[in-house]
Amino acid sequence: DFMNALNEVKPAFGVADEELVQYTQYPIIKFDRVIDTILNDGRLFVEQVKTSERSRLFSVLLYGPPGSGKTSLAARIGMDSDYPFVKIVSPESMVGFTENAKINAINKVFNDSYKSPLSIVVVDNIERLLEWVPIGPRFSNGILQALLVLLKKQPPNNRRLLILATTSQRGILHQMGMDDAFNDELYIPNIKGMAAFKRVLESVEMFDEDELVTVITELKDVVDNKNFSIAVKKLLLMIETAKKDDNPTDRFIDDIKMLAATSSSSNDSSAGNNLVGY
Amino acid sequence: DFMNALNEVKPAFGVADEELVQYTQYPIIKFDRVIDTILNDGRLFVEQVKTSERSRLFSVLLYGPPGSGKTSLAARIGMDSDYPFVKIVSPESMVGFTENAKINAINKVFNDSYKSPLSIVVVDNIERLLEWVPIGPRFSNGILQALLVLLKKQPPNNRRLLILATTSQRGILHQMGMDDAFNDELYIPNIKGMAAFKRVLESVEMFDEDELVTVITELKDVVDNKNFSIAVKKLLLMIETAKKDDNPTDRFIDDIKMLAATSSSSNDSSAGNNLVGY
Amino acid sequence: DFMNALNEVKPAFGVADEELVQYTQYPIIKFDRVIDTILNDGRLFVEQVKTSERSRLFSVLLYGPPGSGKTSLAARIGMDSDYPFVKIVSPESMVGFTENAKINAINKVFNDSYKSPLSIVVVDNIERLLEWVPIGPRFSNGILQALLVLLKKQPPNNRRLLILATTSQRGILHQMGMDDAFNDELYIPNIKGMAAFKRVLESVEMFDEDELVTVITELKDVVDNKNFSIAVKKLLLMIETAKKDDNPTDRFIDDIKMLAATSSSSNDSSAGNNLVGY
Amino acid sequence: DFMNALNEVKPAFGVADEELVQYTQYPIIKFDRVIDTILNDGRLFVEQVKTSERSRLFSVLLYGPPGSGKTSLAARIGMDSDYPFVKIVSPESMVGFTENAKINAINKVFNDSYKSPLSIVVVDNIERLLEWVPIGPRFSNGILQALLVLLKKQPPNNRRLLILATTSQRGILHQMGMDDAFNDELYIPNIKGMAAFKRVLESVEMFDEDELVTVITELKDVVDNKNFSIAVKKLLLMIETAKKDDNPTDRFIDDIKMLAATSSSSNDSSAGNNLVGY
Amino acid sequence: DFMNALNEVKPAFGVADEELVQYTQYPIIKFDRVIDTILNDGRLFVEQVKTSERSRLFSVLLYGPPGSGKTSLAARIGMDSDYPFVKIVSPESMVGFTENAKINAINKVFNDSYKSPLSIVVVDNIERLLEWVPIGPRFSNGILQALLVLLKKQPPNNRRLLILATTSQRGILHQMGMDDAFNDELYIPNIKGMAAFKRVLESVEMFDEDELVTVITELKDVVDNKNFSIAVKKLLLMIETAKKDDNPTDRFIDDIKMLAATSSSSNDSSAGNNLVGY
Amino acid sequence: DFMNALNEVKPAFGVADEELVQYTQYPIIKFDRVIDTILNDGRLFVEQVKTSERSRLFSVLLYGPPGSGKTSLAARIGMDSDYPFVKIVSPESMVGFTENAKINAINKVFNDSYKSPLSIVVVDNIERLLEWVPIGPRFSNGILQALLVLLKKQPPNNRRLLILATTSQRGILHQMGMDDAFNDELYIPNIKGMAAFKRVLESVEMFDEDELVTVITELKDVVDNKNFSIAVKKLLLMIETAKKDDNPTDRFIDDIKMLAATSSSSNDSSAGNNLVGY
Ligand SMILES: Nc1ncnc2c1ncn2[C@@H]1O[C@H](COP(=O)(O)OP(=O)(O)OP(=O)(O)O)[C@@H](O)[C@H]1O
Ligand SMILES: Nc1ncnc2c1ncn2[C@@H]1O[C@H](COP(=O)(O)OP(=O)(O)OP(=O)(O)O)[C@@H](O)[C@H]1O
Ligand SMILES: Nc1ncnc2c1ncn2[C@@H]1O[C@H](COP(=O)(O)OP(=O)(O)OP(=O)(O)O)[C@@H](O)[C@H]1O
Ligand SMILES: Nc1ncnc2c1ncn2[C@@H]1O[C@H](COP(=O)(O)OP(=O)(O)OP(=O)(O)O)[C@@H](O)[C@H]1O
Ligand SMILES: Nc1ncnc2c1ncn2[C@@H]1O[C@H](COP(=O)(O)OP(=O)(O)OP(=O)(O)O)[C@@H](O)[C@H]1O
Ligand SMILES: Nc1ncnc2c1ncn2[C@@H]1O[C@H](COP(=O)(O)OP(=O)(O)OP(=O)(O)O)[C@@H](O)[C@H]1O
Ligand SMILES: [Mg+2]
Ligand SMILES: [Mg+2]
Ligand SMILES: [Mg+2]
Ligand SMILES: [Mg+2]
Ligand SMILES: [Mg+2]
Ligand SMILES: [Mg+2]
Repeated sequence: DFMNALNEVKPAFGVADEELVQYTQYPIIKFDRVIDTILNDGRLFVEQVKTSERSRLFSVLLYGPPGSGKTSLAARIGMDSDYPFVKIVSPESMVGFTENAKINAINKVFNDSYKSPLSIVVVDNIERLLEWVPIGPRFSNGILQALLVLLKKQPPNNRRLLILATTSQRGILHQMGMDDAFNDELYIPNIKGMAAFKRVLESVEMFDEDELVTVITELKDVVDNKNFSIAVKKLLLMIETAKKDDNPTDRFIDDIKMLAATSSSSNDSSAGNNLVGY
Repeated sequence: DFMNALNEVKPAFGVADEELVQYTQYPIIKFDRVIDTILNDGRLFVEQVKTSERSRLFSVLLYGPPGSGKTSLAARIGMDSDYPFVKIVSPESMVGFTENAKINAINKVFNDSYKSPLSIVVVDNIERLLEWVPIGPRFSNGILQALLVLLKKQPPNNRRLLILATTSQRGILHQMGMDDAFNDELYIPNIKGMAAFKRVLESVEMFDEDELVTVITELKDVVDNKNFSIAVKKLLLMIETAKKDDNPTDRFIDDIKMLAATSSSSNDSSAGNNLVGY
Repeated sequence: DFMNALNEVKPAFGVADEELVQYTQYPIIKFDRVIDTILNDGRLFVEQVKTSERSRLFSVLLYGPPGSGKTSLAARIGMDSDYPFVKIVSPESMVGFTENAKINAINKVFNDSYKSPLSIVVVDNIERLLEWVPIGPRFSNGILQALLVLLKKQPPNNRRLLILATTSQRGILHQMGMDDAFNDELYIPNIKGMAAFKRVLESVEMFDEDELVTVITELKDVVDNKNFSIAVKKLLLMIETAKKDDNPTDRFIDDIKMLAATSSSSNDSSAGNNLVGY
Repeated sequence: DFMNALNEVKPAFGVADEELVQYTQYPIIKFDRVIDTILNDGRLFVEQVKTSERSRLFSVLLYGPPGSGKTSLAARIGMDSDYPFVKIVSPESMVGFTENAKINAINKVFNDSYKSPLSIVVVDNIERLLEWVPIGPRFSNGILQALLVLLKKQPPNNRRLLILATTSQRGILHQMGMDDAFNDELYIPNIKGMAAFKRVLESVEMFDEDELVTVITELKDVVDNKNFSIAVKKLLLMIETAKKDDNPTDRFIDDIKMLAATSSSSNDSSAGNNLVGY
Repeated sequence: DFMNALNEVKPAFGVADEELVQYTQYPIIKFDRVIDTILNDGRLFVEQVKTSERSRLFSVLLYGPPGSGKTSLAARIGMDSDYPFVKIVSPESMVGFTENAKINAINKVFNDSYKSPLSIVVVDNIERLLEWVPIGPRFSNGILQALLVLLKKQPPNNRRLLILATTSQRGILHQMGMDDAFNDELYIPNIKGMAAFKRVLESVEMFDEDELVTVITELKDVVDNKNFSIAVKKLLLMIETAKKDDNPTDRFIDDIKMLAATSSSSNDSSAGNNLVGY
Repeated sequence: DFMNALNEVKPAFGVADEELVQYTQYPIIKFDRVIDTILNDGRLFVEQVKTSERSRLFSVLLYGPPGSGKTSLAARIGMDSDYPFVKIVSPESMVGFTENAKINAINKVFNDSYKSPLSIVVVDNIERLLEWVPIGPRFSNGILQALLVLLKKQPPNNRRLLILATTSQRGILHQMGMDDAFNDELYIPNIKGMAAFKRVLESVEMFDEDELVTVITELKDVVDNKNFSIAVKKLLLMIETAKKDDNPTDRFIDDIKMLAATSSSSNDSSAGNNLVGY
């Protein structure tokens, strides 16, 4: 139950961020080898910060299309570490804050982290933290400047900090000169190709074997089309929607075909869904 | 426990938002099959949020020309559900609020909804909530950012939320990257073609059978012209105006012809009235 | 005397707005048939709002060149109604108000109107209420948004509201998407042609019959020129100025000729005086 | 009653605005017939406002190059009237005021004027009141809007108001749509041609007759050049400077020649000094 | 010593501004005849304001490249006068002031000056007072407007005021329409040509006669190049730097040659150093 | 007296700024002769300010690509001086400050420095202090203006101040006209060429002699490529990362090759890493 879940995710000698727990409720599906690589890289960063002599600060940018799993993966890496301090800085807990209140809230998490010998801070959804909107464009320069400084500010002696940030707008970060502030970056892709697609279907145990064959046969051409990709978040939602239908298999096949048709016909280059690299 | 929580929020079968009630004073005329489809889709969303495992949050954008019935339909879907919490967030109750007061009012409705096991929030007239004006353009980025976060913020455990939002400016939402924040969207059309037109006339019981024949005969060419369309709100108003006239039939025929002449002669592409898709 | 004037304008069962009274001090000259039509239309709107079933809210935009009589006509329609609540929202009573104070003052008039079963609100000089200036352009978006909402906000049950708004900048309202918020609009023209011109001269009883003949003979070509038009406000002022002259007839003829010469030589399309339609 | 009201505002024959007095310290030199015309027109406006039936408000714009005498002439017209209330609204008494304080100060002068049966308000140096700067351009829209309303706001019953405004930036007022707010306008020119030039020299009694002949002979070509003009303010200053010199005649001739050379060689069209009409 | 220096600079019957004293610590080197002319002109202005009948206010703009000695010369003119009130308005004493505090500080100096029969106000470094930056461009319009008014505001009766302002950005002042507000202006040039150059070297007594010959021989071509010029401030600093070197003569020759090479190769027209007139 | 003043500020031999200490934790590697030159120049500036007669203020700009060692070198120069007052002004200690708080904090450090006979102020990371972002561009003009004034403000009598400022955005400083405010500037380069590269590797004692030979042989072509350069900060981090690897030598060689490939293929001219001069 919930209490158990909570206990499971909480590391032995540390206090997990309650907010973070909710991002790790569901298991990660390894629909692509890259998911393993990302989790592995995460473990390496965790290790390096813990043991290196000089790089007591390390920052990584997780970027990729909307719904590709960035927050889940960052949260998972944080929760799987044995660091005593793991916190998330998220726009969701700052709705209605003034710019100053936001900066203070962000700054507080970093300052708190400096008190722990080993800390991870997840800076989630940078474009939303920055209050970015493409019209103008507008954004909070105050929050940007605070992040630019905090991303490079050495923790005090004997303190070590790993920063995991997420964004689906890496291009904007580049325009702001923020991408240079990270020591490394990881691309979190959408689901592409039938192999990855199938792995998700299998892991949610929605279709029996026959149905799965039907689905795969029906969708093979669509899903293996080189322009097709789908966010894991969207695929999981479509599966749930199909489940409620009288004929889940058909409904699901139809929905995916519809999606593929819409995406490929739209040439809107600003739609992030199908882009592999920005 | 769950049942108790339910009881606290709503004693018997649900307390409807007073503000919402006024949008459902008059019955919906099903002038087009699409009206039925929309109401049906609404019922499906209501069902899915109630029963699905993972998609405890679902958001739908109702968009269409001014006066096409978006608010009425969203309100109707909310009122027809058996959810204990149904509230509308509307610019009409926020005249004279500061930006901050607006954000807080919006945020409060969402936070209240998180206390109910099942909630519907109608976010009405987004372009007005955002204080959008095409000159500049200008809008409240603070309100936009609050909405962008609230549209994607998962309710707490055991809480479920359906968001129904309305706009007659979908294009603007796209420019702001807000359309991507919705899980689905429904187009609410104007009245087009004589069949739909007639259905409205019949249902308001204004003309006797002979008069109706006259009206239809007279207006057939005008109304069946592929460029003609009229918002249900406007048509109902024109009917009322005609009623006061000494010769309602003639007055009504004249007014519609005048409208058709004006609209077709005007090539102003920013006039929303005749556009089917944006 | 003044007290009598006040009594005359005050309807039987209602309290007239003091501010409004000053706009109805002088009788309307019906220099053109359109003036009658406008007053008639006004009476119809007054009637319709009073008796219709569903359109308990109706809004009309009176637009036309500066000084053409927009405010006077709106005020007259309001004063001639038998509505118990007739109020004007005018920039003249808000000099030095902050944006917020203006919005609150406007909002208060509307909220007060909702307490009366039958109300008329005159929203005068919208471009000034909006603090519009063509350089930039700049204007108060806060006031615009408040008006956009108030123009479409249904009064509570059993309450009925007629809104009469005036502007000499309809083009600007279109750019702001505000013109769509009105249910109807009336164009208030300048004085054009000798017939209308003469009717004003006659009604102010300035010239005796012989003088009138001289004036008309002298100015015929000028006034009947299709490019000539003059605001009623300006014509009345020129008459007053001429009165003080030793030779009123000659002075008046000269002034009008001068005006005509200046206007026709100027090709400045932004000068509103001679424009019939925008 | 009327006479009592008059007495309350002004005991004997009127209390002149102290600030205004300083602008009328020196006599007006009638270097050009136009100066007489302007003072005459001023007297007519004063008369008309006092006696006309309907035009209880009249506003005039005095415009012309910097230093041409606009403020002096407006102040003179005001001081020469027998109005009990004559006040100047000037940026010089508002240095360091916030925008709001400025608007309130302006508004107060007008409101005070409404308490007097007959008032003159001099609105001096509008471009400075508006805090205009060509870069941007920037200006205070708040002050502009207050002025736009106050220029057209009818004084209460039995109150009469003449507004005299000055500017050396009529073009800017046109861009802002402010020029339309005036009922009349007067152009105040620079000194042009030897006749006017000589009249100033004579009236300040600087040179004896022989010297005057020398000066005139020497400067004839320069001053009668059709491109030459000089602000009366500048000419008076140059005379003072020459006076201190060992050889005033030569110094004065040199300075004027230098000025003429500089102005004619400069093709900077934004320099206001030599422009007769804008 | 310092106290003596203070006493020397303090006029007999007046209180010198402490801040101003520091700008007159070192004697002015008359490296060019123009320096004498400037000091002379300064004395004339001082005299004229003291004795003239009507021009009780006189304002002069000292402009020239950075470091050319503008502030020193303005301060020297002020200190050498026998005026009882001599004050400097400088950005150096306003670091961290809000715009309003700055305006108030500036206004206070002028208001204080109005209490003295004879006053000099040095308005130093106008572009910095205005917080000018070429990006945008941005500047404080509030401070600009205050200065524009104060530069033209007549002191009260029997009060006389000389304003000496400095800038190295005359072009900007022109764009803002501020240059017209001055009654006169003086150009403060850089050091150009060997004669001026040598005079500085001699007066600082750095090199003995032989060394001076070497320096002059070596640098003749460089310094007499028509494109070469150097700010007196920079030259004095280079001399000081050379002094510390083991071989001052060679070091100095090298540094000047280096400077000449850099400046002439750079075609950056925004670099102010070599410009004689703007 | 002077000696007492000295004692008050610093009892024994000087109290180093705690913040500054952290920037001098690690020894400077002299990977290039230029590093020695820079430290030498620093010593000369320290000497000159201490002993010169007139240049009691001297300011130097250290500029170069991100991570090239600017802050470390400025801090080292400051720490190696025997000045009693050495402080750093850094954005890191001002996160979340308002613009005004930042200006006050900066101003305070300078004002404190004026109390010490000999002071060094390190103004670190000017572009971050200015809150610069290329979009717009935007920055704090308030902070810019404060710095522009403080960089040129003479300390009081008997006080001497050396200012060391750092930036990786010299181009921006030029656009703002800030580069002219410095008396001198030093370029801090990246590591270029195998000689410099090798010196870093040797000094961190990571590889034994054989490994070093391998690394050098493998990377010779890459590192000696004229387009290759690497920030010392980045190189040190890559060495640390390689250390954690099972096969540090291979990992390091791979990482460097990867970096070289990425940089040379990218033609993004805004990436600062490979630029020698701006
Ligand atoms: N690899 C995965 N396996 C299973 N579920 C996943 C995976 N990645 C994400 N999810 C699920 O998808 C949903 C969205 O994931 P998440 O919020 O992490 O994506 P995101 O990239 O951060 O989205 P956004 O761009 O909106 O911030 C969550 O419900 C999460 O549980
Ligand atoms: N299908 C319908 N049948 C009958 N009446 C309708 C229908 N749709 C809307 N109406 C009526 O039309 C009027 C306007 O509808 P509503 O406000 O819902 O439209 P809207 O699209 O939200 O308008 P807006 O673009 O102005 O927000 C209401 O009075 C409502 O009762
Ligand atoms: N038809 C008319 N007959 C007689 N007088 C009129 C008429 N119309 C307007 N007036 C007079 O003209 C003057 C100006 O009219 P009013 O203020 O109503 O015009 P307006 O169009 O509102 O002007 P503005 O564009 O400045 O707001 C008033 O004094 C009014 O009495
Ligand atoms: N016709 C005149 N005869 C004599 N003196 C005059 C005349 N006009 C102006 N002056 C003098 O010239 C000076 C400037 O005049 P004034 O301030 O009225 O000009 P202005 O046009 O308002 O200037 P600005 O454009 O700077 O506001 C005053 O000292 C005034 O006494
Ligand atoms: N003619 C001069 N003879 C000797 N020293 C001078 C002379 N002019 C200036 N100086 C010295 O040069 C230095 C700078 O002069 P000053 O500050 O007056 O120049 P500035 O033009 O005002 O500079 P900025 O453009 O930076 O404001 C001062 O130390 C001053 O003593
Ligand atoms: N010459 C050097 N030798 C050894 N280590 C150095 C050297 N220069 C810099 N470092 C180290 O590199 C790291 C970054 O240096 P520093 O912060 O001084 O660079 P920076 O140019 O100021 O960077 P930024 O552009 O990010 O401000 C520090 O850990 C510092 O110890
Ligand atoms: Mg996310
Ligand atoms: Mg609606
Ligand atoms: Mg009006
Ligand atoms: Mg004036
Ligand atoms: Mg200076
Ligand atoms: Mg640094």
